Formats: sequence, structure tokens, C-alpha cells
Amino acid sequence: MFDRSIGDAVTPLNVVIEKVLSPVRAVIEGRETLMFGTNSYLGLNFDPSCIAAATAALASFGTGSTASRVASGNQALHVELERRIAGLYGRRDAVVFSTGFMANLGTIGGLVREGDAAVLDAHCHASIFDAARLSGARVLTFRHNDADDLARVVAESGIAPARTLVVAEGLYSVLGDLADLPAISGVTASLGAVLLVDEAHSLGLYGTGGRGVAEAQGVEDRVDVIVGTFSKSVGVVGGYCVTDDPAFRALRFAARSYLYTASLPPPVVAAAGQALTIIRDDTERRRTVFRHAEAFHRGLAALGLPPLAPPGPVGAVRMPGIKPGLDTWTALLRAGLYVNMLIPPATPNGEVVLRYSISAAHAAEDIDKALAIIATTGRQTGVLRPAA
Amino acid sequence: MFDRSIGDAVTPLNVVIEKVLSPVRAVIEGRETLMFGTNSYLGLNFDPSCIAAATAALASFGTGSTASRVASGNQALHVELERRIAGLYGRRDAVVFSTGFMANLGTIGGLVREGDAAVLDAHCHASIFDAARLSGARVLTFRHNDADDLARVVAESGIAPARTLVVAEGLYSVLGDLADLPAISGVTASLGAVLLVDEAHSLGLYGTGGRGVAEAQGVEDRVDVIVGTFSKSVGVVGGYCVTDDPAFRALRFAARSYLYTASLPPPVVAAAGQALTIIRDDTERRRTVFRHAEAFHRGLAALGLPPLAPPGPVGAVRMPGIKPGLDTWTALLRAGLYVNMLIPPATPNGEVVLRYSISAAHAAEDIDKALAIIATTGRQTGVLRPAA
Repeated sequence: MFDRSIGDAVTPLNVVIEKVLSPVRAVIEGRETLMFGTNSYLGLNFDPSCIAAATAALASFGTGSTASRVASGNQALHVELERRIAGLYGRRDAVVFSTGFMANLGTIGGLVREGDAAVLDAHCHASIFDAARLSGARVLTFRHNDADDLARVVAESGIAPARTLVVAEGLYSVLGDLADLPAISGVTASLGAVLLVDEAHSLGLYGTGGRGVAEAQGVEDRVDVIVGTFSKSVGVVGGYCVTDDPAFRALRFAARSYLYTASLPPPVVAAAGQALTIIRDDTERRRTVFRHAEAFHRGLAALGLPPLAPPGPVGAVRMPGIKPGLDTWTALLRAGLYVNMLIPPATPNGEVVLRYSISAAHAAEDIDKALAIIATTGRQTGVLRPAA
Repeated sequence: MFDRSIGDAVTPLNVVIEKVLSPVRAVIEGRETLMFGTNSYLGLNFDPSCIAAATAALASFGTGSTASRVASGNQALHVELERRIAGLYGRRDAVVFSTGFMANLGTIGGLVREGDAAVLDAHCHASIFDAARLSGARVLTFRHNDADDLARVVAESGIAPARTLVVAEGLYSVLGDLADLPAISGVTASLGAVLLVDEAHSLGLYGTGGRGVAEAQGVEDRVDVIVGTFSKSVGVVGGYCVTDDPAFRALRFAARSYLYTASLPPPVVAAAGQALTIIRDDTERRRTVFRHAEAFHRGLAALGLPPLAPPGPVGAVRMPGIKPGLDTWTALLRAGLYVNMLIPPATPNGEVVLRYSISAAHAAEDIDKALAIIATTGRQTGVLRPAA
């Protein structure tokens, strides 16, 4: 499949977005396509006020900073963005990185080193695994969302809990399931391990304040460090970490992915700042996401494609193999519906899934239309039973 | 020093650029400051046509793509940018990454793994060392720019040259010295090792085509893979690799820093594309850089501060220790001149240096003005002898 995928047939890995019409509509292969596979959960990448902020920053600060935050790349915009993200979380300090991937590299690499342990949920993102490996710490995993297994792994590691960093995500972005943070943070708090939660896909969606799953589950005070990204709900690119730990200030002068890279371009920083203001003030957008998510979830279940996790901004339905999955993905695209097809190793447990995402920018009719396309196409490709 | 540096005195690590007036003028601590410490070698971060391209992309593609290149983050803009960079180098394929740091992670990680060797020039950038460590390959270094030592290290590694990746940079960005690529590529070609050159700081500056030091030194045909960045002369952020090797197509589906990260935002991609067009067509800008660099180099030498490398876009002068270096850096900033102060481990050989960069956006008078400020300030802080 991979060899054919460049400059030949359209596959899940080489779709070209020819035009973007809105956060949920694009032109692909010349066709207007309904997008159910972006991470623009709040539609902010096309918000007029975010575009205006980016445009103004281009004019006043230029297209890029050309330098690291510790050289001439530390603009007033970057400092202000860190204040906003720290303020959103009500924490003392925030550090902004140039990508979410690099936020994990820098933060995890700043927290643990040789002699320490990094204990990761088995479903954690590639950047978390890479960060842990690069840190020099001993890397261990616990069974996905299994607090008992976490306790066992920490106990058997031979490394003191105080030198152990436990990492989980708020929302797992492949299947759309949530961390069980009360149980996980119960283990880390009782053992005295450090807990880092990556809220990459949950910022702006969970919790009254939009801070993520730790807020929604009421355990923010037991999470030592939160990492997140500006490339999903915020609509641009970049990453951050927030903490109350004063020792963490040293991170700014220890994290190689912070020191040795150019800072985020002014239009990106300005758009992120405006998006964070919207996330703080506009709670209606996240309610819209969940309303749509519930309708889509019900509709899929009624078709005989029950999603693998409760309703939320991300969902996935199982395909009976790579061939029917690919056939269905292709037929959906040809019918004007874009979703993500994922196979191992991007998926856990060897699953082949069609993954979808819900956006506040979807209209209720978009949900109905997507379900209608899935019903028709699924019967054609055989993943749904023929209509009675 | 580090502890004081947040929210307290201005130090080399926490300068805030309050306003950007041009690629070479900014407001720092309320004062208009002449910038000799950015990496905007060609002034393109403020070029009107680059700003216009970015502004247009914001309106048509939005502030960000919200997804990886292998999902819904592969826009026509990204594909076009890869064509342009491949076209500039006259190579078959180019892959664009979200930062230069991640280009090294992905490219080096895609080329070597456990059982292979990565042999790095000792002065290589942090991202190259991190990439090599993360790859799982055996990481070895050779003495800076010493082809004989490179040959010795490869011979003694116990790993076949065909499984050995040698990495050098075109222009070393701390002291401003160039790689001896004829000698280094002579060794890799004769042994059959793979040679990767990082042209991060040399793109747009060296060679008739602006492709970098390998072009300028006439050895492009002996360089297997070139990596570079859009965050210096190109004026935005992002990285790339180019190669003719068809096997390299697999990189797109193997590099975790490509697969598992959001793609570059539309305004960044559009500005980079326009900047590459300028780099290809406008050779006058690079000639201006070298004209200024030679004047500045002569002026510094005449003051008794001989730069540590021949004239070029980057230079550095030695300071007699951290205290006089910091005093001089601070006094220069107060007098309206921004340069970079660098200390180990950011510098090689334990040097304390003031590093400067030259931009095509500098005027001849800026060179004179900077030299005058250095003359006055250097005498005040004692790093220059008093005027006769």
C-alpha cells in the first residue's frame, strides 16, 4: 500500500486538501467534501478573529522570529501567550514550545534522566514514547488505563516513586476514550510519584473551564504537570506545559527542544492567544461538540457500527480488516465524506478503525448527512448489513 | 545567573523583543535597538511579498491545518512547497517537517537504527545529537572538521561503512566557520558511508544557486541527503530534507516526527514558498550579506577583536570570561546594539563569545554604527584597549 501511495491512487496517507472552504468542508480530488477527520474540534482555525489576530501579527512582527526563545526569538507575543495559558490553568508558570511533539520532548526530558523511571500508559502518543526514550530514564509501560497495573509496575521497577514520572493522556486520540485520572492520580498521589497528563486533544473540550479531562474529573490538584498542544482545538501549531512547581523554571534553561529551536512564528502565536480567549469565554462551542457527538454516536450505533468509546470529540468504529476498511474509507471519500483510516501501529490492539472527529463548526445537518453517506456506502462495501 | 533571569534583570537568555521595526531593528526595554543577533540573514521575515503570501494563505486555508500530513493536514500548499524545495536542489524528493529540529529527528531516525552507526562532527547541533541518540544507532563523534579523524572513527567503529551515517553542518552557527566538505565527502565517498549535511544556516547564502556550502564547495554530488530549515534565511519555521535516493520515499511513512505531528500552518508554508522563490531568483541579497560581513569583520579586527572565522553571515569574537562577556553584552544592549552572548555548552572548546549575524537588510551605515558602539562600549567594559 505504501509504495503506491505517492503520486498514484489516493490512500489514507496521501490525501491532498486542495482547498479549505471552512473548518469542516474542503475540496479533495475536485469534490466538496464534508470533513469528519480533522482535529479542529472548535472550528477555530477558520475563526475570523483568530485570522485577524494572525494577520495583524504578520504586519507588526513579521512572518517568523528566526531565532530561539533564548536569543532574539522571544517576542512580547510569546510572553503574553505563556501568561494566557498559565492563567487559563491558574498555574504559576507555562512554557510554550514550537510543537506539541517538542513540548513532550522538552518537558519529559526536563523531568527525568538516567536513574529515573518514566512509566507510560501503553496507549500514549509516539512523542511521549520518544521523549521518554530520549530522556535516558528507564521506560516502562502500564496496561492502558489500568491503575492496578500502574501500581504494580511502579512497585516492581526498583526505582523510587519520587524518581518516577507517570504519564497519561486526557483523551486518547485514536479511539476517543478518556483516561481514568481519579484512579491513576490516586496511585501516583499515594506512592509519591510525579504525574504528567497530556491534554492535547481535550483542551477546550472538557471541564467547565475547558482545561481538559483532569478538570472534568476533578483531579487537577493531583496532576503535577500538564502538557498540551495548540494544533488541535486551538487551530495552529505549538505546545505547552504548565505547572506550579517552582523547580520547573529551570526547564526553560534545560530543555533542548526549547533552547535549540526557533520560536513559534508571530501569526501562530497571535492566533493561539485569541483562540485561548475564545476557549476561556465561549463555553457554547464545547456544548455543541458534545451535542453533535451524541447524535453521531447514536446514529452509528443504530446502523450497527457502535463506536468504541462513549460520545466525545473523537470516535472510532471497528472495520473487519484492512481490505474492507480501505474499501469503505475510499468509498466514503468518493461519496464526499472524509474520515481517518487507522491501522497498527497507529492503533492499539491490532485494530483497524475508521476514526472520526466532531467539530463545533459542524451543523446538525452535517451529522445527518454523514450518517446517510455511511449508511449507503457501508452497505455497498459490505461493512453494514443491507437495509431491511 | 539563570535564577535571576526570569522577570528580573535582562540577561542574554530572557531578552523580550517588544516591537519589531524591521528585520534588523527592534524595540527592547523601550529602546530602538540595532539587531546583529537574529538569523534573518536575508531579511525575508519582513519581506512584503512573504507577508502578503502568508496573509493570503490565512484567508484561504485558515490559521492551521490541525492534523498530520498523513491525515487531513496535507494541503496543496505543503505539496507545492516540497516541489519547490526539491526543485531548488534539483533532487527527486523533498520532505517538509514542522521544525528543523524535527527534520533532523525524522531524517536521521529514518536513516539509521540499532546496529548502525551515526558519526557526527563534534560541533553538530543539539538536534542532530538528539536525533542520533533517539535512533538507537551507535553514536560516535569525530573532531570538528577533521576528515582524518572521521576516517579513523569510522574504521575503528566496528560497523560497516555502508551502515554508517556521517553528519556535518554546512555553516556552524556559533562561530560561523564552514565545513570542509571536500575532505569529509572524500572520506565518505571512498569508504562508502552515507553523508548527510545540515545546511540550516547556509541556505540562501552560499553557492550560486543559494543551496548552501555543499554547492559552494562543489561537492553536492557526494552528499546523499541534505537537511535544512525554514527558520533562518527563509524567515519562518519548519525543516526539510532532500535526496535523490528512491529508498528515501519510505521516510514519509517511517519518520515519527513526520507522522505524529501537525503539519506546518498555511501562513508559514506560503511565506516559505515565496521566500524560496526569492532565494532562487535574487542573488543580490547574498552578495550584500558578504559585502557587509567583510566590512564588519575588518572593523572588528581593527578594533582588536578578530572574529574566530572568515567573514560570513555568522561571526563570533572571544570574550575573556563570563563576567566581562556579560558586562559587555549588557552594555552593548543598553547602547542600542543586540548581539548573542554564548557560553558552554552552547559553545565549543569552553569559549565565551559574543556571536553576531549579518543581514542583507542591514545598511552600510548599520555596520559602521555597530562598530562605533562596540568601540565605545568595549573600552568602557575593558575588553578593548582604551583609544590612543
